[in-house]
Amino acid sequence: MHSSSIITLTTDFGYRDHYVSAMKAVILGIVPDVRLVDISHEIPPHDTMAGAWVVRNSAMLYPPGTIHLVVVDPGVGTDRKPVAIQINDQTFVGPDNGLFSLIAEDFDYKAVSLTNKKYWRNNRSNTFHGRDIFASVAAHLSKGVKMSDLGVELDKLVTYRWAVPISDKDGIQGWIVHIDRYGNLITNIPESLLRDNLHESQAIRIYVGNTILDEISTTFASVTDGEPVAYIGSSDKLEIAINRGNAKEMLGVEKGAQISIIIQK
Amino acid sequence: MHSSSIITLTTDFGYRDHYVSAMKAVILGIVPDVRLVDISHEIPPHDTMAGAWVVRNSAMLYPPGTIHLVVVDPGVGTDRKPVAIQINDQTFVGPDNGLFSLIAEDFDYKAVSLTNKKYWRNNRSNTFHGRDIFASVAAHLSKGVKMSDLGVELDKLVTYRWAVPISDKDGIQGWIVHIDRYGNLITNIPESLLRDNLHESQAIRIYVGNTILDEISTTFASVTDGEPVAYIGSSDKLEIAINRGNAKEMLGVEKGAQISIIIQK
Amino acid sequence: MHSSSIITLTTDFGYRDHYVSAMKAVILGIVPDVRLVDISHEIPPHDTMAGAWVVRNSAMLYPPGTIHLVVVDPGVGTDRKPVAIQINDQTFVGPDNGLFSLIAEDFDYKAVSLTNKKYWRNNRSNTFHGRDIFASVAAHLSKGVKMSDLGVELDKLVTYRWAVPISDKDGIQGWIVHIDRYGNLITNIPESLLRDNLHESQAIRIYVGNTILDEISTTFASVTDGEPVAYIGSSDKLEIAINRGNAKEMLGVEKGAQISIIIQK
Repeated sequence: MHSSSIITLTTDFGYRDHYVSAMKAVILGIVPDVRLVDISHEIPPHDTMAGAWVVRNSAMLYPPGTIHLVVVDPGVGTDRKPVAIQINDQTFVGPDNGLFSLIAEDFDYKAVSLTNKKYWRNNRSNTFHGRDIFASVAAHLSKGVKMSDLGVELDKLVTYRWAVPISDKDGIQGWIVHIDRYGNLITNIPESLLRDNLHESQAIRIYVGNTILDEISTTFASVTDGEPVAYIGSSDKLEIAINRGNAKEMLGVEKGAQISIIIQK
Repeated sequence: MHSSSIITLTTDFGYRDHYVSAMKAVILGIVPDVRLVDISHEIPPHDTMAGAWVVRNSAMLYPPGTIHLVVVDPGVGTDRKPVAIQINDQTFVGPDNGLFSLIAEDFDYKAVSLTNKKYWRNNRSNTFHGRDIFASVAAHLSKGVKMSDLGVELDKLVTYRWAVPISDKDGIQGWIVHIDRYGNLITNIPESLLRDNLHESQAIRIYVGNTILDEISTTFASVTDGEPVAYIGSSDKLEIAINRGNAKEMLGVEKGAQISIIIQK
Repeated sequence: MHSSSIITLTTDFGYRDHYVSAMKAVILGIVPDVRLVDISHEIPPHDTMAGAWVVRNSAMLYPPGTIHLVVVDPGVGTDRKPVAIQINDQTFVGPDNGLFSLIAEDFDYKAVSLTNKKYWRNNRSNTFHGRDIFASVAAHLSKGVKMSDLGVELDKLVTYRWAVPISDKDGIQGWIVHIDRYGNLITNIPESLLRDNLHESQAIRIYVGNTILDEISTTFASVTDGEPVAYIGSSDKLEIAINRGNAKEMLGVEKGAQISIIIQK
């Protein structure tokens, strides 16, 4: 572990209470010259998988030595473990409740359970471990404390998985796992699965919500305004959008909805 | 006063207009190497007491010498005074309209009215003192200008008070003073009042919204999902929550609602 | 061009996805010691003119050498040009789709089309040029790369204009071009046009939404709570507000609505 000058913050705390501020204050009190980078505080309340998605899609792009403080913690005060995780040259701190399950699927990791109270805040509540444990530990990591000093090694993180898409000779069945601010529908179907299962010569039909599409385009601007379009998004998953419109609203689709790609015979 | 490298920002400006940006630009123009820390820009419009709550719960945790720029200013352009306030090793700048009343209740303070226009922006509007007075003054404080140079001493700040909870031998009557992003109901009943008035051997009933509770738990995760729970929150006040749910919505409670704790005979 | 230590960020990405984080990560990967300043990520989705308004009202206040990364990009993946623009001592990077049209109306500029892929990210998507082109180019500019190295000179930026207010001897006809977080209605009528066309001795009537006003006040606090008021706002345009209320809601006005100032005979 090398010392870090960047701590990122990802939470479901929102922007109107004092929760984000209290975490920043605790960090700056311990390591005044650290640079704080807000990733998101608008993860939907208690939605650990939405937090996991944001972490999976941006954390590994940060400079070596970055520490990622990630707190979506509906089970605060229960026996869910506070953890620190090392993945390549990035470090993560937060509750072990599935928040790190998407990134831990893609990479080897080393984890410790945060049992050493020396690096916790002295004055602790039962309901705000973001301030009292996680912010404090992230700051100490940034000052150069070693992961191995934070607690005992943990073999395996809690793993929640997205449903894996199903594919056979007839096509692919997947699910909408995230809907972004624009209403774009992001599926759990990776580009590689499409490449392995579909051939350019084959006609396809894509069924999602109240619409049917018959091709995968290169960008959502490939169709005229207001039309639906399927394309490989910036996270390497199949996405469905409405060009300059909101697909969630116009196609009547919620998170968890099915998407079917049927190969035409 | 010592010079500071951190200025925090707390406003009701929201995130979609240029108001926050204009304040940051003015500050960086005066003191380019200062570190800006966003606390909240989502204080509900014009809600000075919500701003006071956020300030009260996080500002004093910051490193010595931090300057807190706090602007919720519905009376901009009237005769409400622009002020700077020193509390322990923290400095506050903003309008004297109750924003600082919760923190001023808990601590001794020294205040000045910002009458010295030398530290204001040259080009001033009547409607945006956040940019034209407060940001400029905060930046000059950060550069090392003394509070006493900013204007004339002020004996007493405007004080708005939350209703004080009422207690007698029958129990405690309080009010909901803040509802957070999760819908948790935060009361004006401090832990100390509960400790002084209730004894563990006594049975209690807590009446709030459309529910009745019969104990104070240690954390909201003490009950099963979807159940209401009373506990001492991270701000040392009694709070009511729904475990993994939204108490505001499920109990039908708005800010200002009563909460009654009745000792059972 | 001199090297810069500040990059500001203005987008319509919102705060709940990984898009802002991915841009910050790309920048910090190229220029780890740059200072990131969030301006807004809540520009309404795809609303380039709302983005143009925020840029116009705050960017030129920043310290010399600041780089402004501005991404509201509904046409990503089409042939709209990625550009860098120099205006006085400020530099702008983003899509040439009208985002820079308000600021380019007020100032002389030099622009280049970003054709040199050397400064783009190696791994590029068709749908996230914010991460893959604009963030990368802004970071390289901050490291000292010259504008002329980024691509070929561009004579003229895409220009969208707000309707220009109409004035004659009977009065002024304008439009609501922005509605801010408080519901204040900001018109396209500049203070200078009012000064040139109205004389203090003349009685006027201002018609907007479902109300009629008969004077221009110095600040919105000039009237009692709940009353509508016209005044020159902090952006030097005529604005209509409700003192401590929401004019958009109370006057029933949407962006694009007419406002008429009629000189009484």
